[in-house]
Amino acid sequence: MAGYPKFLEDLIKELSKLPTIGPKSAERMALSLLKAPAARSKALADAIMNAKEYTKKCNLCNYFSEQDLCPICQNKHLRDKVICIVEDAQDVIAIERTSYYKGLYHVLGGKLSPLDGTGPSDLSFKKLFYRLKQESINEIIIATSSSREGETTAQYIKQVLQPLKIKVSRIARGIPVGSNLGHIDQATIFEALAGRREVTS
Amino acid sequence: MAGYPKFLEDLIKELSKLPTIGPKSAERMALSLLKAPAARSKALADAIMNAKEYTKKCNLCNYFSEQDLCPICQNKHLRDKVICIVEDAQDVIAIERTSYYKGLYHVLGGKLSPLDGTGPSDLSFKKLFYRLKQESINEIIIATSSSREGETTAQYIKQVLQPLKIKVSRIARGIPVGSNLGHIDQATIFEALAGRREVTS
Repeated sequence: MAGYPKFLEDLIKELSKLPTIGPKSAERMALSLLKAPAARSKALADAIMNAKEYTKKCNLCNYFSEQDLCPICQNKHLRDKVICIVEDAQDVIAIERTSYYKGLYHVLGGKLSPLDGTGPSDLSFKKLFYRLKQESINEIIIATSSSREGETTAQYIKQVLQPLKIKVSRIARGIPVGSNLGHIDQATIFEALAGRREVTS
Repeated sequence: MAGYPKFLEDLIKELSKLPTIGPKSAERMALSLLKAPAARSKALADAIMNAKEYTKKCNLCNYFSEQDLCPICQNKHLRDKVICIVEDAQDVIAIERTSYYKGLYHVLGGKLSPLDGTGPSDLSFKKLFYRLKQESINEIIIATSSSREGETTAQYIKQVLQPLKIKVSRIARGIPVGSNLGHIDQATIFEALAGRREVTS
């Protein structure tokens, strides 16, 4: 049985490593690239290499940035003195899209998960404490996910921040349990932010 | 509102040009590439460029090939002297996967479609006639799609091949294996009834 030529097979294989892409979709994508002008393959290949090379993390908040500081931290004098703590960089985009929140962010880079071996030292807590020493912040909003690990992470943050006497709130339940912020509609994110409650001990 | 950095936005834009990929899927794919080691981005970018650069068309049958002749045409002495005419290169793979057919192929590169301005000169008929003059072929199987344009193309092929006095057949239309009659359109049921074959013991 004749298959596809080697380089086409290689492309289908690489494409099917992408999330949610099965072998059939990868085949369709590869064939569409072959049919399109060479400029489109080049544009995609360049975009992949450039994104990986130039997208770094903000020195302050860990969000995506092409410079030392992300656009949000660069303009922090224009933002509310509030830090919203999220798990991943895409959570920042999800919150920014609501246009409700005007504060700063801190991207943890994950959530506490003893089963996966993710402890506090694997997340960007050091950076967070450094920021809180340098900046005067009025409130911390914990916007980790509503999964069990997200709740554990929220509890941990609440405990370690207690000595600093900063107001700490938790994004409201309203986010469906077990979902990531990136997959939630804007209205729900809006409600969850507006309905945040102060964490009292 | 802060968005993604420029190079990440560029990657999401390029990925969402791929078939069946919406902006949400493109975002997930881009973020997964950012998270993965740099070697994976490079492997994908290289695969895209290599596939485009090295995947050409077989000089004889128009199927994908990295050399002048595709593996099928290179070994045509081992194949039946039958040519199956298909619209696109991926149709060859679909037929090869059945392991039923042992003949040769000819890839038209599309189907006749007056509405889209695709006439006979846009398809690889010249190559086909050249082959039929050079090789001794016992049968031509027309396996264009069962759409209106596919049928028109099949009719056209039948007419232009008539002077050559070669046996010409059309791939059978009928009920797909595993389908219920209730879910099949009337045109297909009509074809399946009209094309019924006597059951012999």
